[in-house]
Amino acid sequence: MRTIHVIGIGAGDPDHLTLQAVKAMRATDVFFLLDKGEVKADLTDLRRAMLAEHLPGGSYRVAEARDPERDRRAGGTAYAPAVDDWRSRRAAIYEALIAEELGSDETGAFLVWGDPSLYDSTLGILDEILEQGRTEFTYEVVPGISSVSALVAKHRTGLNRVARPVQITTGRRLAEGFPEGVDDVVVMLDAHQSFRAYAEEDLEIFWGAYLGTPDEILVSGPIAEAGPRIEELRAKARERKGWIMDTYLLRRQD
Amino acid sequence: MRTIHVIGIGAGDPDHLTLQAVKAMRATDVFFLLDKGEVKADLTDLRRAMLAEHLPGGSYRVAEARDPERDRRAGGTAYAPAVDDWRSRRAAIYEALIAEELGSDETGAFLVWGDPSLYDSTLGILDEILEQGRTEFTYEVVPGISSVSALVAKHRTGLNRVARPVQITTGRRLAEGFPEGVDDVVVMLDAHQSFRAYAEEDLEIFWGAYLGTPDEILVSGPIAEAGPRIEELRAKARERKGWIMDTYLLRRQD
Repeated sequence: MRTIHVIGIGAGDPDHLTLQAVKAMRATDVFFLLDKGEVKADLTDLRRAMLAEHLPGGSYRVAEARDPERDRRAGGTAYAPAVDDWRSRRAAIYEALIAEELGSDETGAFLVWGDPSLYDSTLGILDEILEQGRTEFTYEVVPGISSVSALVAKHRTGLNRVARPVQITTGRRLAEGFPEGVDDVVVMLDAHQSFRAYAEEDLEIFWGAYLGTPDEILVSGPIAEAGPRIEELRAKARERKGWIMDTYLLRRQD
Repeated sequence: MRTIHVIGIGAGDPDHLTLQAVKAMRATDVFFLLDKGEVKADLTDLRRAMLAEHLPGGSYRVAEARDPERDRRAGGTAYAPAVDDWRSRRAAIYEALIAEELGSDETGAFLVWGDPSLYDSTLGILDEILEQGRTEFTYEVVPGISSVSALVAKHRTGLNRVARPVQITTGRRLAEGFPEGVDDVVVMLDAHQSFRAYAEEDLEIFWGAYLGTPDEILVSGPIAEAGPRIEELRAKARERKGWIMDTYLLRRQD
């Protein structure tokens, strides 16, 4: 039986790798690297560097494929169908990789940015392939340091306050309104700086981009002051590098 | 200047340690181990085993102290004050450890279960000591694999569903009502199996105890079926080991 390791590799710092991740990498025959186009080439390079550092040369193979583009213009009610369609196209590519590149008793691995449990589609795609029943395998998940954990560690603050909840949500959701019943909200996948809608509120923001990498930028403070600084830094960084990955915590003051 | 490392050591599996955590441990002179009484001796032993495995003998010192007991009977409005009082007593003990056990240019470390950002009081305590201004130090946080990440990895499911939010909350909060605006809720610190109040709802539960350890127990399924099984397993395990650490994800079905 084929086995797939879904390995969380952390949020950018190569030292986020866990000992469990390194062991799972060493027990892998074929690494599936999905290239998301030029703008994310940096991330693919980081994965290759991790393999080179922790595995003996010649002990593994790499199978590359091009990740399909998602229709990022689709908004509102078209958003979920656009993601579904993109996921199905990815599933076809993943299935081909597993079926064609992996021997019947071999182990393959996907190296997932952050933690595979948080806003990552790999597990859903593998379940979709298994449901279709054409390609058989088992899979295991190795948890990783998420960008959420990395963000608050760098800001030396907690995710939640004593005995209180925290919500993790998306920029799209935040744009629809501040979540109910929580005063601590982590926002991911926010291409539109949705925090700007809350500039007048008594909120503190803890923001980070390119966490754990040499390009890391951190800003924190009351949103009225920190917000414009983040917008400026974000625009410049995105211009310079061609892509940006950022996340932030909004904390309502008591 | 004294430096303190607040190191997340993962959720129970010694291989949850990150390379960053191991490096931070190797750069530490004194480890502060807080003994929480007999029932948590297992956790202190695990920390000692990690030190023994990753550090050369004789390269570090260990300073032990007894963690104060928290008044766990305090509920309702007495809960937050009880936690505050407990935190202040801990702050006094931590401050004494730092002031008395750490030379002026040395580095100390607290090894924190899971991720220091999630329902852990170490960062708040260090901030409280610094605010009082009697003892000076800087501190750094090393993120760790949280029990939340470990839980969903073992269940091979995501924390959130596509483009949707997830809330992390406590058993006390869940007992007050199902959080608004979310269909995926992770519950921590639940001594009273608050999920029982939702046994009639169309929820799936993903539960885990002693995650990552040889005692690990996992149960998942519709809450009407899985709930009673969890109650039984939980009671037996608690009886046998004298303590239990568990967490779960509740997922409302679409």
